[in-house]
Amino acid sequence: MGNTFGSNFRITTFGESHGGGVGVIVDGCPARLPIDVDDIQHELDRRRPGQSRLVTQRDEDDRVEILSGVADGLATGAPIAMLVRNKDARSGAYDHLKDLYRPSHADYSYDAKYGIRSWQGGGRASARETIGRVAAGAIAQRMLREFAERADRPAPEILSWVDQVHTVCANVDEASVRLDEIEADPTRCPDPTAAAAMTSAIEQARRDGDSLGGTVRAVVRNMPRGLGEPVFDRLEADLAKAMLSLPATKGFEVGSGFDAVTMTGLDHNDPFVPGADGPDTPTNHSGGVQGGISNGADLRLRIAFKPTATISSEQQTVTRDGEAVTLAAKGRHDPCVLPRAVPMVDAMVALVLADHELRQLRNTIL
Amino acid sequence: MGNTFGSNFRITTFGESHGGGVGVIVDGCPARLPIDVDDIQHELDRRRPGQSRLVTQRDEDDRVEILSGVADGLATGAPIAMLVRNKDARSGAYDHLKDLYRPSHADYSYDAKYGIRSWQGGGRASARETIGRVAAGAIAQRMLREFAERADRPAPEILSWVDQVHTVCANVDEASVRLDEIEADPTRCPDPTAAAAMTSAIEQARRDGDSLGGTVRAVVRNMPRGLGEPVFDRLEADLAKAMLSLPATKGFEVGSGFDAVTMTGLDHNDPFVPGADGPDTPTNHSGGVQGGISNGADLRLRIAFKPTATISSEQQTVTRDGEAVTLAAKGRHDPCVLPRAVPMVDAMVALVLADHELRQLRNTIL
Amino acid sequence: MGNTFGSNFRITTFGESHGGGVGVIVDGCPARLPIDVDDIQHELDRRRPGQSRLVTQRDEDDRVEILSGVADGLATGAPIAMLVRNKDARSGAYDHLKDLYRPSHADYSYDAKYGIRSWQGGGRASARETIGRVAAGAIAQRMLREFAERADRPAPEILSWVDQVHTVCANVDEASVRLDEIEADPTRCPDPTAAAAMTSAIEQARRDGDSLGGTVRAVVRNMPRGLGEPVFDRLEADLAKAMLSLPATKGFEVGSGFDAVTMTGLDHNDPFVPGADGPDTPTNHSGGVQGGISNGADLRLRIAFKPTATISSEQQTVTRDGEAVTLAAKGRHDPCVLPRAVPMVDAMVALVLADHELRQLRNTIL
Amino acid sequence: MGNTFGSNFRITTFGESHGGGVGVIVDGCPARLPIDVDDIQHELDRRRPGQSRLVTQRDEDDRVEILSGVADGLATGAPIAMLVRNKDARSGAYDHLKDLYRPSHADYSYDAKYGIRSWQGGGRASARETIGRVAAGAIAQRMLREFAERADRPAPEILSWVDQVHTVCANVDEASVRLDEIEADPTRCPDPTAAAAMTSAIEQARRDGDSLGGTVRAVVRNMPRGLGEPVFDRLEADLAKAMLSLPATKGFEVGSGFDAVTMTGLDHNDPFVPGADGPDTPTNHSGGVQGGISNGADLRLRIAFKPTATISSEQQTVTRDGEAVTLAAKGRHDPCVLPRAVPMVDAMVALVLADHELRQLRNTIL
Repeated sequence: MGNTFGSNFRITTFGESHGGGVGVIVDGCPARLPIDVDDIQHELDRRRPGQSRLVTQRDEDDRVEILSGVADGLATGAPIAMLVRNKDARSGAYDHLKDLYRPSHADYSYDAKYGIRSWQGGGRASARETIGRVAAGAIAQRMLREFAERADRPAPEILSWVDQVHTVCANVDEASVRLDEIEADPTRCPDPTAAAAMTSAIEQARRDGDSLGGTVRAVVRNMPRGLGEPVFDRLEADLAKAMLSLPATKGFEVGSGFDAVTMTGLDHNDPFVPGADGPDTPTNHSGGVQGGISNGADLRLRIAFKPTATISSEQQTVTRDGEAVTLAAKGRHDPCVLPRAVPMVDAMVALVLADHELRQLRNTIL
Repeated sequence: MGNTFGSNFRITTFGESHGGGVGVIVDGCPARLPIDVDDIQHELDRRRPGQSRLVTQRDEDDRVEILSGVADGLATGAPIAMLVRNKDARSGAYDHLKDLYRPSHADYSYDAKYGIRSWQGGGRASARETIGRVAAGAIAQRMLREFAERADRPAPEILSWVDQVHTVCANVDEASVRLDEIEADPTRCPDPTAAAAMTSAIEQARRDGDSLGGTVRAVVRNMPRGLGEPVFDRLEADLAKAMLSLPATKGFEVGSGFDAVTMTGLDHNDPFVPGADGPDTPTNHSGGVQGGISNGADLRLRIAFKPTATISSEQQTVTRDGEAVTLAAKGRHDPCVLPRAVPMVDAMVALVLADHELRQLRNTIL
Repeated sequence: MGNTFGSNFRITTFGESHGGGVGVIVDGCPARLPIDVDDIQHELDRRRPGQSRLVTQRDEDDRVEILSGVADGLATGAPIAMLVRNKDARSGAYDHLKDLYRPSHADYSYDAKYGIRSWQGGGRASARETIGRVAAGAIAQRMLREFAERADRPAPEILSWVDQVHTVCANVDEASVRLDEIEADPTRCPDPTAAAAMTSAIEQARRDGDSLGGTVRAVVRNMPRGLGEPVFDRLEADLAKAMLSLPATKGFEVGSGFDAVTMTGLDHNDPFVPGADGPDTPTNHSGGVQGGISNGADLRLRIAFKPTATISSEQQTVTRDGEAVTLAAKGRHDPCVLPRAVPMVDAMVALVLADHELRQLRNTIL
Repeated sequence: MGNTFGSNFRITTFGESHGGGVGVIVDGCPARLPIDVDDIQHELDRRRPGQSRLVTQRDEDDRVEILSGVADGLATGAPIAMLVRNKDARSGAYDHLKDLYRPSHADYSYDAKYGIRSWQGGGRASARETIGRVAAGAIAQRMLREFAERADRPAPEILSWVDQVHTVCANVDEASVRLDEIEADPTRCPDPTAAAAMTSAIEQARRDGDSLGGTVRAVVRNMPRGLGEPVFDRLEADLAKAMLSLPATKGFEVGSGFDAVTMTGLDHNDPFVPGADGPDTPTNHSGGVQGGISNGADLRLRIAFKPTATISSEQQTVTRDGEAVTLAAKGRHDPCVLPRAVPMVDAMVALVLADHELRQLRNTIL
């Protein structure tokens, strides 16, 4: 259980890091939506390992196959199943991990839950699981664009970037940052100075057998108004769930986030002023949601990722039999997940928005 | 849509701040669970307005009536419906708000979504909506205790408290703090020095026509191992959603949260050591969840609440017709929601854990 | 669990025959739908006991109270909670049933499932539970009418009637039968001759301490095309579930039903001919659905109800302790549920159609 | 939407008759359940085309590949994805159908709903879609057996067979019929005389360019008591939905079904007598469910299938442009779907029972 996300635009993912492959079923995609396999592949390429020396060197080309639900380049309304085969799954590389629990990995907790685990490369807890999400997210993005076009409004623009790695903070203007700036550097940090410092820090961490965390920021411009379903499926609640369902996430903020704590109501409230298309808010501490519903202002999110649990330094741990042992990780891994997290965040935002667009349709008829 | 929470222990809430009342249906409560109306009323009394001069003076006794699903003090397996009537609903007090949008309230976004709103006292966006959650949470707590007793393990102990108000931070030992310490002060801050400073700050804010935010921390001791359903219904993902579905929340952390960002893997990883009942982790940056599943360590959460949007100072805003106006709030309100947020956080944690306990049953048979 | 029905137009019911009351939460009702409490009360009055000497004489006026979700006669988009208090619940009348299992009632199976039961008057298994469905169904009917009006098409007309009681079969022209003809007789059989014979049969059954079953037929004219969600939520699948979820139902047919078995493909296939608004089918063995999706032809259903389990003749049964005893039922009951089943069938059809109308919206944008 | 079935043992299917393949994701399978690919393949072979001259000659070996969720022959708790590639998909054979609507097929209604369709071989409406269900059903069956073993009770035995084809009715003793008797004849009718007559009738229908319908009966022996979740997810309601979600079904009965109509309460009620393991019912008009919950008696179902819509005789129909045309079907098809429907019915029964077994766990703790 727990492998389905979304209520009306609904995805179910499957697959482990080692085995036949990973993938997703998208159910609820509006019929006749153009489905372009290149769009999907493009997003998968963004999250693919081996893109730069900053990330894991596992050699996967991650080619997606659309198994169903598409005819003549259009969604038929039937479920869209997509499969990415595993290729470079060196099971042998994990033999030494079979009977022990890597610290801060899912090894022990999976065992505690299931009494069994796919111990090879993280199994279902591997970041490889996110392939299905990213593939589905590309379809969600397309849906958002097409719906906007039909309604004659600008398409929602979802942009995520690496905002901080360890102590290196980027200086980015949320209002103007562009995708090409984000993609210009392997770090996916659009501030070139910070990007260079992040690169150095990540490479140093790798040399030290250590790893680094960081934050991703996301904004959505041209946000449709009225998305979010109080009280439990508030837009920020679904986004928080989406983000915390990504591997290695530890925190979530919308708008002012934890900074709200030291502000007062007078400072924090976003005054309304007359706008072209309903009221505007010159400030945006709300982050684009009020009462769980989007108000048309930019959606603003920030997500904390912990340092990768896999490090090559020695660590203390225990075996399944409860014996203390010393572990030194082998195998390939990212010393910092942040650059590859960006397309995952994009995908999850798109999936949440697409779901809420469909849920909001009921209120547009009467 | 969006008024149901939980998969197997499932609640559906209803009601607005003004109207016939608020309440909840609990579906999925195990048959023969003892249901004690006093337990439920006790939790409702904790969230009730008018408990102290720190919170809104709306006069509601919030007596709960159990409409169904209970016989001879035991759950029958049928849905448990609970109703709390509204009493002190002075609709007239909101007449001046009918045609304008209060800044950082849900007034505008509800209108944008629904094209209509219950403008009296916040309607569905009112914190009064949480009554149903708190009532259901009391039942969830009881379920957790009874399940633990049957399994001969200590009952999960859910404790939340006010950890910060504006710039006043409490000094609390998470490992030892007790419920009676939390309940000892109307602030629900168990650090008496900080509690006094918080009280002063809140009273000053009220005098200033202003409001304050803060953070709530929650821990769960005696956590059952194995709760959480990867990949989307990870325990922390469901908790994040639960917290961000509460009014006025802006941020969520599990374990190290945003502090993880500036740590390295070597510092952040929680080494395993042999324990009495499976491996232990002397540190707990993970916050009790690894790979989305509880590992038996204490669950550790932190939630950011913004300053109350309702303030009595003058603010700029617009009417429904798009005209700029000046608003000065009348009516009763909390200058700081934190003290009353504590039982809401307790309830949401309990609801998530109860749901995941039921979901985990499947893995206990074979 | 199991007390929620529908995916997008979703109801959750609660309540037992004895206790605080019965009711429903409707979640997903489109905002600004007119909600007329008289419409709702009218449907409740149709299912109310004591309407005629054919049905149980339990004295309930079944007045509905709308607790939430409506402002100025319009749905606000918030959940609509409705409550009907129990009034004439003579618990004492059931004391003799406390420790024994009435044949073909839910007494034993509830005990087997829950280990506890509300033994008074059937508890949750009572037909009184359907009050919430009927109230919600009235709202669903209104939604169907309003949606049709906005789309400038004739409103779907849902008509159910008693087609057979025991061996008395009605002769009704499905294409022309009208609501006033159905409501003209307490049997809800629009064939006056058959209605008279049914009345005699039911009265005789009551005198004999016995009970009778029968069938209800339902048609929906002006069916919207394109409703139904293959493969599991085919329109007929959701309708079958809806009908078999009603108390005392034993069988379901769509279109030709079991008569299809002895037809051949050549006879059974409905040839298409050019029509005004898409192809028409001069025959309608399909019953308005093909491949799980409505094709615009009339929806045609037939539902079998067993004879009421409660009879006043003596029966053999056992106690909770497994002792054989003889039971003679006291208390009030219907010797034939069919007349009161009609508004229940109407409601369930309306709920299924409303849900599928909302689900189909996704395919209307691109 | 609509491609997911089940609440706790949940399947999502995908795939069309022509395209990359068909398959299923099983989510909620208890960890450590033995997963034997041969068991699954065995069930797929039972529904496979080309088994005998009675069924379609499409040449598919329908080899299943398990993509995920299994390690060392055991379910890991992760979603189990299974894929069957399409092989003998002669798209060209359907070219003449591209622009016309076959009578009583889903061609028109899919177009009305989606505005697009996979017109090759029925697309998603093809019986080929049921492959995923049958594969998942084999896992559900295994779960039922293992759960029974752990509880030291006999395993539920699910048996379906062809009971009637056109006017040929079988004479089968429900209480004693065995799987090997059912599998002994390609008709899957365990009455050899009737089986021979059915075979003749089917072969004659093929020669006549016609097709035949029929009924499948199903019984479940050793039924667990207490399965079913009132009020909407009554066991018979979920079974009715399951059956009506199968292609070509038109009717459903549980227990006495439509025969209940002409019985009286005195005849129809199943008296309770003391039994070894709770009360027994010497008669079983209830069909094993009372009040929506299994009572331990055999589950008894009957399902009506219409004659196959595909026939080779000429038929009148219309094109997408609304022009009247004459159609003579080419391509391969079954003149009677009944023999291959049997494993589909088995699978759906198993899926419903497995789901309800998991849902009932909550009531077994206290």
